[in-house]
Amino acid sequence: SYGLMPRSTAGLEAAGEWPAFRALLPDLADKTVLDLGCGYGWHCRYAMEQKAKRVTGIDLSKKMLEKAKELTQDQNIQYECVAIEDITFSEATFDVVISSLALHYVSDFQQVCEHVYHCLVPSGTFVFSVEHPVFTAMASQDWFYDEQKNRMHWPIDHYFSEGLRKTRFLNEDVIKYHRTVETYLSNLLDAGFTINRLCEPKPSASVLKNYPDMGHELRRPIFLLLSVSK
Amino acid sequence: SYGLMPRSTAGLEAAGEWPAFRALLPDLADKTVLDLGCGYGWHCRYAMEQKAKRVTGIDLSKKMLEKAKELTQDQNIQYECVAIEDITFSEATFDVVISSLALHYVSDFQQVCEHVYHCLVPSGTFVFSVEHPVFTAMASQDWFYDEQKNRMHWPIDHYFSEGLRKTRFLNEDVIKYHRTVETYLSNLLDAGFTINRLCEPKPSASVLKNYPDMGHELRRPIFLLLSVSK
Repeated sequence: SYGLMPRSTAGLEAAGEWPAFRALLPDLADKTVLDLGCGYGWHCRYAMEQKAKRVTGIDLSKKMLEKAKELTQDQNIQYECVAIEDITFSEATFDVVISSLALHYVSDFQQVCEHVYHCLVPSGTFVFSVEHPVFTAMASQDWFYDEQKNRMHWPIDHYFSEGLRKTRFLNEDVIKYHRTVETYLSNLLDAGFTINRLCEPKPSASVLKNYPDMGHELRRPIFLLLSVSK
Repeated sequence: SYGLMPRSTAGLEAAGEWPAFRALLPDLADKTVLDLGCGYGWHCRYAMEQKAKRVTGIDLSKKMLEKAKELTQDQNIQYECVAIEDITFSEATFDVVISSLALHYVSDFQQVCEHVYHCLVPSGTFVFSVEHPVFTAMASQDWFYDEQKNRMHWPIDHYFSEGLRKTRFLNEDVIKYHRTVETYLSNLLDAGFTINRLCEPKPSASVLKNYPDMGHELRRPIFLLLSVSK
């Protein structure tokens, strides 16, 4: 089912948060880039379009990596089948580490921060997006509806109960990990990072004009993006 | 009514977020301190207990400042009746600027950040608390209840509609300003600050034991605390 989503078939331009994510990226020209949870490799190929020197994409899904390889011609993009938690790259291997909507599937974010800090060059940048803590707090991850199926508001509960959430996504059971905004920031700061920017993307005026239903996306944050530097 | 709240009569120890706030403060010994929205002056007197050199407390409420002066013996604490938006202190006047639950009453937070940055010494610290954006998004600022008056969840709506909220507090109309987490962080970063720490305080185990009703405070964040440096 994921393969049929607009972002899977049409790539980055079909991902609502992409303009905000792109705006957080440093200049990628001549940079070595690591993509944590690269999926079909859209961000890896984007990095090469921006004249990156070399890109490594890692993902746990063999199926996604197969598709990524099919879609990729460039010899300077390497895909590796490894869990984000298990990366063991040497010190100062990458100029830029990115991750798009993957880290809320990882149980130990502190460890990820430490690994990323380790494998970044000094002053290197880590840019990532996750589902927003406001979105992940309740496992239902859905609006609260009235009897006429109108979306009344977004419900929050269990905000400070961090950890596992069993949710449904595209008719599949999915395990996610809820963390507070404080935990995201503190884990990054504790690893040694400096915070460059925090972003809660919302639909642009043109998106709202073309897709009126996107107006609901102004009612609660769904994604959290961070840019931090070593 | 505010004067009858525990935090007004018993001071800082009766304020749930105080342990988290105190933990963010730098060493105040021999420091010059500014308190934005000082109210009854509890934080000003705390700073002097910590051996601050000199403390300035500002507030718009003459009534609160009168009470603050009554409660204060120390000649090194000065109170001034001025709006937070209107401070015009000279460059590098203060080592530390603090503000407790006042800045969500200020319409232009960017301007506050610039003023505070200006009047801080290099490496000076700004520590403040505000009502959390999750709390201020909806003007109702209340739980969503079922028909038996059980607290079902905390509702969020209008998150990206920043600005004025007319709310009720202690039976009075109160004007507040809702801002997103992104805006709080971006305004600080744009003013030139470095983020030291972001905190979403929650009740401690001992508070939860003594006041079981505080368990609801684990369900959604109510305060946002930040420590930033020039």
